[in-house]
Amino acid sequence: MDYVYGPGKNHLFVPGPVNIPEPSGTGAWESALTNTLSPGDRTVSFLIGQFSLLWIDQQQRLNFNVDVVESEWGQGANLDILAEKLAADHSHTIKAICIVHNETATGVTNNLATVRKLLDHYRHPALLLVDGVSSICALDFRMDEWGVDVALTGSQKALSLPTGLGIVCASPKALEASKSAKSVRVFFDWNDYLKFYKLGTFWPYTPSIQLLYGLRAAVDLIFEEGLDNVIARHTRMGKATRLAVEAWGLKNCTQKEEWYSDTVTAVLVPPYIDSAEIVKRAWKRYNMSLGLGLNKVAGKVFRIGHLGNLNELQLLGCLAGVEMILKDVGYPVKLGSGVAAACAYLQNNIPMIPSRI
Amino acid sequence: MDYVYGPGKNHLFVPGPVNIPEPSGTGAWESALTNTLSPGDRTVSFLIGQFSLLWIDQQQRLNFNVDVVESEWGQGANLDILAEKLAADHSHTIKAICIVHNETATGVTNNLATVRKLLDHYRHPALLLVDGVSSICALDFRMDEWGVDVALTGSQKALSLPTGLGIVCASPKALEASKSAKSVRVFFDWNDYLKFYKLGTFWPYTPSIQLLYGLRAAVDLIFEEGLDNVIARHTRMGKATRLAVEAWGLKNCTQKEEWYSDTVTAVLVPPYIDSAEIVKRAWKRYNMSLGLGLNKVAGKVFRIGHLGNLNELQLLGCLAGVEMILKDVGYPVKLGSGVAAACAYLQNNIPMIPSRI
Amino acid sequence: MDYVYGPGKNHLFVPGPVNIPEPSGTGAWESALTNTLSPGDRTVSFLIGQFSLLWIDQQQRLNFNVDVVESEWGQGANLDILAEKLAADHSHTIKAICIVHNETATGVTNNLATVRKLLDHYRHPALLLVDGVSSICALDFRMDEWGVDVALTGSQKALSLPTGLGIVCASPKALEASKSAKSVRVFFDWNDYLKFYKLGTFWPYTPSIQLLYGLRAAVDLIFEEGLDNVIARHTRMGKATRLAVEAWGLKNCTQKEEWYSDTVTAVLVPPYIDSAEIVKRAWKRYNMSLGLGLNKVAGKVFRIGHLGNLNELQLLGCLAGVEMILKDVGYPVKLGSGVAAACAYLQNNIPMIPSRI
Amino acid sequence: MDYVYGPGKNHLFVPGPVNIPEPSGTGAWESALTNTLSPGDRTVSFLIGQFSLLWIDQQQRLNFNVDVVESEWGQGANLDILAEKLAADHSHTIKAICIVHNETATGVTNNLATVRKLLDHYRHPALLLVDGVSSICALDFRMDEWGVDVALTGSQKALSLPTGLGIVCASPKALEASKSAKSVRVFFDWNDYLKFYKLGTFWPYTPSIQLLYGLRAAVDLIFEEGLDNVIARHTRMGKATRLAVEAWGLKNCTQKEEWYSDTVTAVLVPPYIDSAEIVKRAWKRYNMSLGLGLNKVAGKVFRIGHLGNLNELQLLGCLAGVEMILKDVGYPVKLGSGVAAACAYLQNNIPMIPSRI
Repeated sequence: MDYVYGPGKNHLFVPGPVNIPEPSGTGAWESALTNTLSPGDRTVSFLIGQFSLLWIDQQQRLNFNVDVVESEWGQGANLDILAEKLAADHSHTIKAICIVHNETATGVTNNLATVRKLLDHYRHPALLLVDGVSSICALDFRMDEWGVDVALTGSQKALSLPTGLGIVCASPKALEASKSAKSVRVFFDWNDYLKFYKLGTFWPYTPSIQLLYGLRAAVDLIFEEGLDNVIARHTRMGKATRLAVEAWGLKNCTQKEEWYSDTVTAVLVPPYIDSAEIVKRAWKRYNMSLGLGLNKVAGKVFRIGHLGNLNELQLLGCLAGVEMILKDVGYPVKLGSGVAAACAYLQNNIPMIPSRI
Repeated sequence: MDYVYGPGKNHLFVPGPVNIPEPSGTGAWESALTNTLSPGDRTVSFLIGQFSLLWIDQQQRLNFNVDVVESEWGQGANLDILAEKLAADHSHTIKAICIVHNETATGVTNNLATVRKLLDHYRHPALLLVDGVSSICALDFRMDEWGVDVALTGSQKALSLPTGLGIVCASPKALEASKSAKSVRVFFDWNDYLKFYKLGTFWPYTPSIQLLYGLRAAVDLIFEEGLDNVIARHTRMGKATRLAVEAWGLKNCTQKEEWYSDTVTAVLVPPYIDSAEIVKRAWKRYNMSLGLGLNKVAGKVFRIGHLGNLNELQLLGCLAGVEMILKDVGYPVKLGSGVAAACAYLQNNIPMIPSRI
Repeated sequence: MDYVYGPGKNHLFVPGPVNIPEPSGTGAWESALTNTLSPGDRTVSFLIGQFSLLWIDQQQRLNFNVDVVESEWGQGANLDILAEKLAADHSHTIKAICIVHNETATGVTNNLATVRKLLDHYRHPALLLVDGVSSICALDFRMDEWGVDVALTGSQKALSLPTGLGIVCASPKALEASKSAKSVRVFFDWNDYLKFYKLGTFWPYTPSIQLLYGLRAAVDLIFEEGLDNVIARHTRMGKATRLAVEAWGLKNCTQKEEWYSDTVTAVLVPPYIDSAEIVKRAWKRYNMSLGLGLNKVAGKVFRIGHLGNLNELQLLGCLAGVEMILKDVGYPVKLGSGVAAACAYLQNNIPMIPSRI
Repeated sequence: MDYVYGPGKNHLFVPGPVNIPEPSGTGAWESALTNTLSPGDRTVSFLIGQFSLLWIDQQQRLNFNVDVVESEWGQGANLDILAEKLAADHSHTIKAICIVHNETATGVTNNLATVRKLLDHYRHPALLLVDGVSSICALDFRMDEWGVDVALTGSQKALSLPTGLGIVCASPKALEASKSAKSVRVFFDWNDYLKFYKLGTFWPYTPSIQLLYGLRAAVDLIFEEGLDNVIARHTRMGKATRLAVEAWGLKNCTQKEEWYSDTVTAVLVPPYIDSAEIVKRAWKRYNMSLGLGLNKVAGKVFRIGHLGNLNELQLLGCLAGVEMILKDVGYPVKLGSGVAAACAYLQNNIPMIPSRI
């Protein structure tokens, strides 16, 4: 931790609250899995980056039979293979599809609507478990329409609260599954929650009261801005960031437009540059927190998070900072180029602030 | 929750942060057990009140072989039976002794020094797992001297922080045990913590940063007051409360002086009074939160918590309020009697505030 | 200032925010006077304690012709003499009556309704300037009904905000007077405020934004409780305090019931006790702030403030503390006696909390 | 006030806390003047912008004999005329020189060292009263070296505290002058402060305790960064802003480099643009607060404040925003041009953060 004071605000452009190599949401993952599945159950799980990898690791350690579908990092979940597996699974051995909506390590957004279409097409009863950590309240997310059975997120992402709450939402089908799921669980057991909910005392043990009040306030802020406007704002910031990356002559780690993420952009650097050096300089000289490249993309990408309680001028300050750093590390960027590209787009697309019209 | 404003401060005299029927520390319990034990392992666990009951329930649900030693509620752990069990356990089938230091439901403090003496006497290698939720940082607690293998507490008790941190401290012996413990665990797995600790990034997933800063500040405050002074203050407040109870002509739920708790006092009411009515009136008329009687002692006791960031005049205001409530519900208390008894003791025992001498 | 930490809350029972010998409201006084009066103007001003004394001192230093009506400290404003002066003042040389509604130094509340009656009876046009620092939002105060021309208070009293706002409210008659008042003023000049108010930019210079938001919130809290309930609560706490004082066998500095203050009680101590010693011990041993006796009553009284965001159990904690201190300094008080007297009254008079019924 | 929520942080780039047409510091001005001067005393005062104008207005209303030295707005104080006046004033009728160090309305910094040199050269005993509202703790300011007799500022500028404190610092010579100064004053009277300071109770009436603690913390932060580093940071941000203005093809309101301000830049817009429209659009679309042009330069300049707790990337976000707005209002700016110019300078000049090296 950095206790020592610097002037002004730290420029936090990580896709999460602190610059550490692994995700929160770990408890929420475990809650989703142990309440709906039994040891030995087959899950289909997509490995497309560090966070899906960690979830898969958890599934394996919890003794599920994990059928891993791997893609190159920078690609989305391979849904063709999912289709094949579903088509072949006549006896319904697949109990759950585990998928991250947005892979925070590579800036890849998976298409959940297609997942649902495939499940429906093959009339497959598998549960759909979705990690929405870096998507819910920032990207378009439709629990009912997409038939998501368990959706989970954390307080510290798009909700813009402090860390501490894992939020898990279960469909009636998931609740039903929890009655027969044999995974050992106590702290995470939904039954305890449901029991106390019905009793009217709500919590099986002392909850984080201050974060529950915070959640109430966070949701109020989202409703005040309008959820559609919140999503549109993230769309704008994702687009503006990608235009800047293009103007710098750099590549997006995400290989196709269909997977572009509006909450985090992973930027590929040329081979002669160590992306960790960029993150280090951002922190040491410009008081800016960028995201490191993790695991397979370590040294190859740096990440700009653009989610949560953030607006366009803050993002532009970040982009200007990145330009200076690129130059610092020897990349021949034209100063102002990314900012100009982002501004050209934003200038015509930022709406008036309704309360100030 | 009570969103509606009332003048002045709520008088919080529960033995925890909110008036709910069950404990926090649940996650810390699970962390202690799953990291040190394997399914089927035999534990000796003492049932002396609602919180030890819940821990035992967890142990059973986690598939341990729980050897329950039950006492009447209001008594401490029966250490004679422990002695017998240890004496008989030549093959060391007992893997852990699970004991609450202070049973919050009945205001009973167990004698951990004696537990250690017994283990040493019989040269028994069982781990000593201690729930210190309502004791650590308020009562005398000696991890090393008493050979405690896992000590646990929560942020919201004597540390006077918001809810959200379960704090678990393991001895070298417990860490060694975690290497072979076969209980399934991921979120709570100490190995992940140790791995990232060694890496220098410290946390396997996003921690509750704000509570870690809070913990630093809370510990600083305790050091500033002096841990011995903190404990002495709790001793004073426990003694003052018991003197008031005696002056009211009421009985302490705790049956012997050796078990008196200096962090919570459970007061027995006469059979013609429902103790829940006392708690309800405290809340509805006097803006004071007292603790309910739980389970076996429901309706029979109400609890005065006197731990954490609390001083004597606050306690006296609480005692005065209890007197009015006792009168409200038809108990023939002499107004001022409990306060007078507490004052007579406190007047001669409250030390000068060192910085103001 | 006392930077060093002590456990629990400081028990703040001063009639203001900090234990200093003089009032805030000084700026508000000057604003009221310089905007309505010209140098040499005759004021009638009542000297009944330290705060009215200081206001008179200010009036003299601002070059008004102050006609001082002095009472013994512990008595209210002598309105018989006011009647005589008004009756004799055929040529209306008296331009303003300056009176504190509640003299914080002695716990005396003046009868403003009578002052208005006298002014009306003699058809006297003098302005009525009222210091409501320790009354407004705690005692019954009727600006329109009593024809008050300037009412003033501070943020840090019954509004329970931090220090920093002097609040001045002027009648149309006072605003009219400000047009011809010749006292030199710039910072306090109402004309600048009115000018910017009309322009729609509201403030002639940067206001204390955070306290304006605080004021909005403070007023909302008062409305939520209900202003009548706020006043009734202060009435209860004043009465409870006086019953305790009586039970201790001590005298109220306020000589007649008609002047009893429900926001502060000044307690006379026997000649063999130095009241400053009581205040000192409260601070040094019990972490409680009581008010000193000031000027003529220094050493003779100590003051219990009971105004603002305060409730009954907090007051009872204070009274219990005072009992211990009285005993500490050698006064033969029966411990519990004052608390019992207060409780006997409060038990039957504290209403249910409406939101919790 | 704008109660309605918008995402992200408001971009506050006014040269003060809120977008209002007049200064704080009004009370501090009055304190400086009334404690050192008597009615009728001659002051030499420089009119170079709206804030010096307002101070002059106050001096006149307080009945001093103000000798106004006017410059075109955009120029600094005319010190040649000061030299003439001092040279001619053999009988020392000039009692005080009143000068703003930094005129916030035009972004002009006056040369105080020269003022002192002139006073010394002519051996003139006039007091030197300096408004340091938008300079102290941001620009190089040397009270002793420059022989400043009264220096004043407010909490809400470079100290980055909330509004509410006027801070006045007096030299021994100023304190001596206060003994004979005949201006009427009570609330602002230094003698009351000195009296209570000597008594050890420090304040003549309740101070704004929370802001005094805040001041302690603010000064600690400045010392932690290092005052020289704070000043260097402001120098960098002033320079970066001016480079951006130049790149946009716009003129600085400040006519000569010697007067350039490192805390606020007033930017002249072409005649066909209303600068108020720029400020309005910044607020309504980009959630950014810029400073209006005031009085003589209304509609002609907009102002970028760059003082206080602010760093370079925040400034770059502001500059990017200004570029979009310039384009919005029809000025043919090349997007990215100003940001690029600022970045080219900053990239080579921002130092490493010492605690992170």
